[in-house]
Parts: sequence; structure tokens; C-alpha cells
Amino acid sequence: MTDTAKLQQQFIRLRSNKVFELTVVFVIISSALLVGAKTYELPEGVALLLGWMDHLITAFFVVELTIRFLAEENKKRFFHNPWNLFDTLIVTVSLVPINNSDMALVARLVRVFRVLRMVSVIPELRLLINALIKAMPQLGYVLLLMFIIFYIYAAVGSTVFGHINPNLWGDISISMLTLFRVMTFEDWTDVMYETMAVYPLSWGFYLSFIFFTAFAFLNMVIGIVVNVMDDEHEKIRKQKAEANHEPTIADLQQQIAELKELLVEQQRKPEVGPDEQRS
Amino acid sequence: MTDTAKLQQQFIRLRSNKVFELTVVFVIISSALLVGAKTYELPEGVALLLGWMDHLITAFFVVELTIRFLAEENKKRFFHNPWNLFDTLIVTVSLVPINNSDMALVARLVRVFRVLRMVSVIPELRLLINALIKAMPQLGYVLLLMFIIFYIYAAVGSTVFGHINPNLWGDISISMLTLFRVMTFEDWTDVMYETMAVYPLSWGFYLSFIFFTAFAFLNMVIGIVVNVMDDEHEKIRKQKAEANHEPTIADLQQQIAELKELLVEQQRKPEVGPDEQRS
Amino acid sequence: MTDTAKLQQQFIRLRSNKVFELTVVFVIISSALLVGAKTYELPEGVALLLGWMDHLITAFFVVELTIRFLAEENKKRFFHNPWNLFDTLIVTVSLVPINNSDMALVARLVRVFRVLRMVSVIPELRLLINALIKAMPQLGYVLLLMFIIFYIYAAVGSTVFGHINPNLWGDISISMLTLFRVMTFEDWTDVMYETMAVYPLSWGFYLSFIFFTAFAFLNMVIGIVVNVMDDEHEKIRKQKAEANHEPTIADLQQQIAELKELLVEQQRKPEVGPDEQRS
Amino acid sequence: MTDTAKLQQQFIRLRSNKVFELTVVFVIISSALLVGAKTYELPEGVALLLGWMDHLITAFFVVELTIRFLAEENKKRFFHNPWNLFDTLIVTVSLVPINNSDMALVARLVRVFRVLRMVSVIPELRLLINALIKAMPQLGYVLLLMFIIFYIYAAVGSTVFGHINPNLWGDISISMLTLFRVMTFEDWTDVMYETMAVYPLSWGFYLSFIFFTAFAFLNMVIGIVVNVMDDEHEKIRKQKAEANHEPTIADLQQQIAELKELLVEQQRKPEVGPDEQRS
Repeated sequence: MTDTAKLQQQFIRLRSNKVFELTVVFVIISSALLVGAKTYELPEGVALLLGWMDHLITAFFVVELTIRFLAEENKKRFFHNPWNLFDTLIVTVSLVPINNSDMALVARLVRVFRVLRMVSVIPELRLLINALIKAMPQLGYVLLLMFIIFYIYAAVGSTVFGHINPNLWGDISISMLTLFRVMTFEDWTDVMYETMAVYPLSWGFYLSFIFFTAFAFLNMVIGIVVNVMDDEHEKIRKQKAEANHEPTIADLQQQIAELKELLVEQQRKPEVGPDEQRS
Repeated sequence: MTDTAKLQQQFIRLRSNKVFELTVVFVIISSALLVGAKTYELPEGVALLLGWMDHLITAFFVVELTIRFLAEENKKRFFHNPWNLFDTLIVTVSLVPINNSDMALVARLVRVFRVLRMVSVIPELRLLINALIKAMPQLGYVLLLMFIIFYIYAAVGSTVFGHINPNLWGDISISMLTLFRVMTFEDWTDVMYETMAVYPLSWGFYLSFIFFTAFAFLNMVIGIVVNVMDDEHEKIRKQKAEANHEPTIADLQQQIAELKELLVEQQRKPEVGPDEQRS
Repeated sequence: MTDTAKLQQQFIRLRSNKVFELTVVFVIISSALLVGAKTYELPEGVALLLGWMDHLITAFFVVELTIRFLAEENKKRFFHNPWNLFDTLIVTVSLVPINNSDMALVARLVRVFRVLRMVSVIPELRLLINALIKAMPQLGYVLLLMFIIFYIYAAVGSTVFGHINPNLWGDISISMLTLFRVMTFEDWTDVMYETMAVYPLSWGFYLSFIFFTAFAFLNMVIGIVVNVMDDEHEKIRKQKAEANHEPTIADLQQQIAELKELLVEQQRKPEVGPDEQRS
Repeated sequence: MTDTAKLQQQFIRLRSNKVFELTVVFVIISSALLVGAKTYELPEGVALLLGWMDHLITAFFVVELTIRFLAEENKKRFFHNPWNLFDTLIVTVSLVPINNSDMALVARLVRVFRVLRMVSVIPELRLLINALIKAMPQLGYVLLLMFIIFYIYAAVGSTVFGHINPNLWGDISISMLTLFRVMTFEDWTDVMYETMAVYPLSWGFYLSFIFFTAFAFLNMVIGIVVNVMDDEHEKIRKQKAEANHEPTIADLQQQIAELKELLVEQQRKPEVGPDEQRS
């Protein structure tokens, strides 16, 4: 075993070390608290201290990521894992030195996203995010239908109500935002009463919109629920079948087939066997 | 094969051509973007360009619909499909030349509904709309019950609260709109506090209304969910049974019946068979 | 057959007559429209006409109820049906002549409730209402828990916040109404910001209240859903078993038991039967 | 049997006495009504009376708890039950005499929590609370994910919007409260329009936040529903299996195995048995 191989072995051991894992979680939480603390007005000294801690955390993240990278046997496969890519991106961006005062805001925002490393480190949270991503394509058509409903109502709204209140119905993008507001029932009657003063029948516009979006939304929710339920049932079914070795109908069929064979054999024997015995 | 038959063959081939289908979707999206663009204030030149594009799209839709119609072997069946009827209606109406300035608004609205052709072209969206239409009759009685609840509360509301605020409780139709607002929890306490100033116990009116409509709404949602679930289960059950050739209880019964027959046969044989053999 | 018996036969035939049933529904709808029309300002002549129609409808209801009563063979059983009791009450109350101007409001309200006869006449709506009544006792404990949560929070609220805004937290009943408003998220932040100005930590009061009521509400909804689902599954299971004569596991067991008996018989026979034949 | 043992027997009999149980419930309800009554302005005399009743109720609770404690055979086990601990805490705290006027508020609040004894006395309510506590750890990761989403958006919000409205985005804790308000759709457009005046694209911040929290919330609800359903199904399955003695597939397998044994035995017999008979 070469020296590099030995070193890699140590990195792999370190990566799966319980203490190392907990240290990483602790540093991420510290970085999150740091981000939170910076939103309060702080005395000069504390701010300086937080600045130093920030540098320390950045350094720790670089070291941690390097260990993970070196521990990976196949270097190419490291970047096939989207969570590793995500970690590398976050750490790299927070390394870029930002002295320009205009970029100070961006620098602070990047530090906020380091909190997201919590998700990449805790497997259960990764599962939840994966569920969100997996559910997306499935919901694609319902989301498309919802977008079409929004688009048509926004086009009608900005065409007909545009002159009443340009702040709400000025163009199609503002109208879509207004419609999203109506969908969340947020002061939607104020929007409606304003247009009803000019077009008394415009309540039909709002009520039909609420009806269609509610239906599309319900469809989406039911779609997710049915999907989750099916996955759950499938999982339970498999668990039962595998763990408890509970017999299935197919097992029974197998057994009955064996029985039949036995009977058929038996029927043939008395005709042949005893004859042979007698002879 | 006559010339017309040859031509029709070509139309049928064209209709199911992948490039043709994608072109149609692309033109519909362009028409949607056109509708959206018109809601913004545009310089003279761009507006003129959009006007020309609009004519082009109208022309394309006419050609496309003609191809679909000619490709149909049974001309009568073409209009039995509601989606074809819908397409024809949209295209025909957008052909009518509108110079009258009063009708300009209507003309623009008709162009908006061309976006709906997206639904008639994409099969998955058609399925979603069909689901909505199929769910309607089933929900009929719940909707009727909800309407009766609204009607009674609106009648009571306009009778009792009419003199307090005619804008909200003036007559039965305004009252129903106010009650729909209460159902969406939109500033419903403002409505309630106003009537409580006169009738201190009127909170009972609102709370009971919220309770009844929430129950009816819940009933509706559960009705849809149960229905969707049943359809889903039925589908899964069939898929399993057909695809995997998994045995059912009925198959087992069949097999056991065969076994029994074998046994009965066997029982009869030893009584008759061996005797015959001996004799 | 006596004359009264003959008459009763005719009443029974009339009661289940399709034309009679449709007439009743039509008169109830008319009475509903009448109630709605009266909420609008009407010219003198029309108001007079509506007054006459109202008398006609009252008369019709009396006749209809009398027919139903006479058609009932067991007069006592007529009042055991709560829907008959409800009909009788509505019709009797609307018979009482009201000349006193103070009672005019009550008289109009009683006419509104005649719309509810729609529910007592249409069987599907009766089923929905029965479902509501059946679900009540089951939800009893969740409702009690919710009431306790409301009561405790209202007591704390009126004790602590009473001096800040007596209109919202004056006594325990006003506080419960305010909390219901918070539960529906209706301008709840206005309520919260007001008390946070005095007690900066009072957000904990609102957030914990929202959390507890949301949990209790969720519990209630899930309780109903699970119940409906179970009923549905039970129904489907029974339908399948009865209609399709599909074999159950119990049927299989029965058959296998028969097989076993056959085998046992067979085993005994060769030992006894052939011996007898030989002897 | 010693005297103390006899006494304990009597306490145990008393504890499970129906009249005693109902008296306890009645006293708790009285204590709840007392708490409610004190939130109203009362004449001097009634207030004095309520004060005396309060002392009586406190005394009753002490006696009742003592009986429960003495009735317990294993004194240590008494405090292993969290509900007993809860009862003891509530009763003990309300015993502390409070003359200091500053503590008057706290004294009144402790009396409010005596209403919670309703939960510790009624078993069905205890079950509901247990369900809440049992569901907590399961929802842990979804709640953690939700907290991370809130934390990141609050950090971004207070960093970017802090200078626009310090009342809403001043520091990270105020921002989290503002985001909770946005999640409940409570006047969220007012919050959004304010920041959109400075950053026109900030609608993306709110819409993405609403999307993510809605997804996390949905996940949570579905998690609970799936869990409840599974428990329910498991319960039903067990009830069926136990109560109705309905055969399972495993029973069938057992029977078929017996059949097979019979057949195998039968096959061996004709080869050996009849031979022996003949010889």
C-alpha cells in the first residue's frame, strides 16, 4: 500500500467519524447563528469578533470539503453527486474576497446560503428535498394548466381593467401578481369592488377565477397525496412480504399445483405400481 | 386510388407529423406572447409589427384547421369531437373583421382565448379538463346544498341587515357575494363588527354560516378525494392483474375445484377400476 | 273496503305521483324566488301580487302536508319522522297571521326557512344533512378539546390584554370571538401588533394558539376523512362480494375442508371397502 | 388486614366511584366558569362570593388529589404518570398564597390552567393530547426544514429589506414573525408592495417563500394523514382477524400443507399397508 493510499484510508475513516460529523453540524449551526447575529445592531468589538469567526468558519469549510474530496476514491464521481456540487459552489463563492462596498450585500447573502449546507449534511433533510424535486415533473401539467388559467385571466384583466387601476392591472405581469393575490384571498374584495364600480358584473371574473384555480390546486394536492399513498402502500406491502415471510396467493397456487401433481402421480401408480407388484 | 384519396392520405400523414405538431404548439405560444405583449405600451413600429404577426397567426390557424378537417375521413365525426368544435369556434370568431372601435375590446378578448387552444392541442391538459367536467355532476348535490345555505343566509342577511349597510346587504344577490367573501375569511370581521353594533348577537349568524359552508366544502373535497382514490385503486388493481398475471382468489378456486374432481374420479376408479382389473 | 280506506288509497297514490312531486318542488322553488324578490325594492303593484302569491303558496303547503298526513297509514309514525315534524313546524308557523308591525321581520324570516323544505323533499340532500348529524357525536371530543383551548386562551387573553383593547379582550366571550378571528387569520397581525406594543413577547400567545387549533382542526378533518374512507371501503367490499359473487378466502377454506374430508373418506375406504369386497 | 390497608381499600373504591368522578368533573367545570366570570366587571358582593368559591375549589382539589395519592398502592408509580405530575403541579401552585399585588396577575393565570385538569380527568381528551405528543418526533425533520427555510428567508429579508421598514424586517426574529404572517396570507401584499417600491423584483422572494413553505406544510399534513391511515388500517385488520376469526392466507397454507401430508401418507400406505394386509 503506497503512502497516498494510506492517507486516503485515513481520510475515509475521518469522513465517517462520528465526532467529525457532529463538528461539521456544529460549525454549520454556528455559521447560521453568525448570520442571524449580524442582522442586529452590534457594538464595534462584537462585530470585529464575528468577522474573525466568519473567516474561521470559511477556513473550516474549505478543509472539510477538501477532506471529503480526497476521501472520494473516484474523483470524477465526487461531482456527479449534486449535493457535493452544491457544497463546493457555496464554499467557493464565500472564498472570493469582496472589498468593493457595492458587493457587500451580495457577500452577506452568500453567507446566508451556507445555512443550506444543513440540508446537504443531514440525510433526512436531503430526502425531503429529493421528494420535492421528484414531485416536480409529475405536477408539470397541472402547473402548466394553472399558468394558462393565470395567463388568460391576466390578459383579460389587463385588457378590460387596465384603465381602472394601472397599479393592479397595468400589464400582464402585474395582473398575474394581482391574480395570485386574489387566489390567496388577500384583500381580494378590495380589488373586486374597485372594478365592480365600473363593470358591475365583474364579480363573475373573480369567482370563476377562484373556482378554476381552486380546482387546479385541489388536483395538484390530490395528485401528491395519491402518489405518496401509493409509494407508502407499495413499501408496506414489500416490507410485509419480505420481513414476515407471509404467504401470498402465488405461494398458495404453487402449493396447490404440487398437490395436483401428487394426485396425478398417485392415480397413475395404482394402475401401474400394484400391477408391477403383483407381477 | 383517386387523386382526392391520395391528397387525404398526405393530409393524414401531415397531421400526425411531429414537426407539424411542434409548429402548431409554437404558433399557439407565439399567439399567447402576442396577447401578453399587447398589454404593455409599445412604440408605433412594434405595434404595427404585432398587428401583422396577428394576421399571420390567424391565417396559420385557418390552414391548420383546414388540414385537420380534410384529414378526417368521416367529415361528420369531426364535429362530434367537442375539442374540434371549440377550435373551429375560436378560429372562426377571430376571422371576423372588426373595424368598429366599440368592438375592439371584444376582438382583443377573442385573441386571448386562442391561448386556450394550448389545452385542445396537448392531450394531458385535455385529460385534466375532462376530469373537471366529469367531476361536476357528482358534486351536483353538494353544490345545490351549498347554494341553498347561501340563499337562506343571504335572504336572512338582506332582510335583517339591509338597513345597516345596503352596499353589503342591499338585496339577495349582493348578500350572496358578501357571504362568499365571509366564506373566504376576507375581512369578514369588518362585516361582522358592523352588524354587531346594531344586533350584538349577530356573530351567531356568521359563525353558523362559516360552520355550515366549511362542512359542505369539506364534504365536496372528501367526495373528490374518495373518487380519485377509488379510480386509482381500480386502475392499479387492473394493471397488477393484467400485467403481472398474478393469480387471484378466483384462480385458486378454479384449481381447487379441479383437484376435487380429480379426487372424486380417483375414488370412483378404485371401486370400479381395480375390480375390473381383477375380474 | 270502506270509503275512508278508498280515499286513503287515493292519497297514497297521489303522494307517490311523479307530477305531484314535481309540483311540490316547483312550488318550493317559487317560494324561494319570492323570498329573494322581496329583498329588492319593488313597485306597489308587484308587491301586492307577491303578497297574494305568498298566501297561495302557504295554502298549497297546507294542502300538501294534509295529503301526506292522510296518506300515512299509521298516524303516529308520521311524527316519528323528523323531516315530517320539520315540515309541519315550518308550515304551521307560516300560518300564524301577523299584523303586528314588530313581528313583520319574524314573519319574513319564517318564510325564508320554507326554502329549507327543499332539503326535506329531495332525498339526496337529506342524506347529506344526515351525514352532518351522524358525524357530530364522533367529533364531540375534538370539539370539546377545541373549546377548552379557546376557553383557556380567552381567559388568559382577557386577563392580560383586557386593559389594552376592551373591544377585543374585554371579557371572556369577546375574547373567544377575537380568537376565532385569529384562527381564521383575519387581520390577526393587527390584533397581535397591538398587544406586542405593551407585551413584546405576546407573539408566543398567538403562535401557540394557532399551532394548537391548527392541530385540533387537522385532527377533526382527518377523523372525518378516515371515517368516510372506511365507510366507502366497507361499501365497496360488500358490493364486490355480493354483486360479482367473487370468491373470498372463507370460500376457499370451505372448499379445502371438503377436499380434506374426501381424502379422509378415501383413506378409510381402501382399508375397509376393499376388505369387505374381498370377504 | 391492617387498618391502613382497610383505609386504602376504601380510597381505591372511592376513586373509581361514579359519583366521585362526576363530582370532580363538576368542580372543574365550576372552576372554569369561575375563571370566565372573573373577566366580567362584577358587583362587590358577587366578587366576594366568587373569592370564597375559589378557596372552596382549591380545597376540594387538594382533598381529591390526596385521595388519588393515598389510593395508589405504589406511591412512587404515582409520579411516573405525567398526568398526575401535571395535576399535582397545578394544585400546588394554586395553593401558594399571593398577597403581593404584582403577583395578582400570575395568581389569576394559574387558576386558568386549572381548566386543563379537564384534559387529565377525561380519558378521551388525554388520548388526543397523547396523539399530539406522539406525532411530534415524527414531524421533527419537516419542522426543522421549515425552520431552515424561515431562517434563510428571514436572514435575506432583514439584510436586504431592513432599511425599508425596520418594524417588519429590523432583525432576524422580527423578520421570522413577518414571514409567518406572509405564510398565513395576512395582508402579505402590503408587505410585498412596500419592498417592491424599492426592489421591483422582490415579488420573487415572497412567491418562492410561499411555494416552499406550502410544500413543507403539505408534506407535514400528508405525513400525519398517512400515519393515521396506517394506524387505522392496522387496527381494522387486527380487529377483523381477531373478532371474526376470518381465515387468512396463512391459514389456507396450513390447511393445504395438511392435505399434502394426508396425500403423501396415503401414497405410502397403498404401497405398504395393502401388502401387509395381503401377506
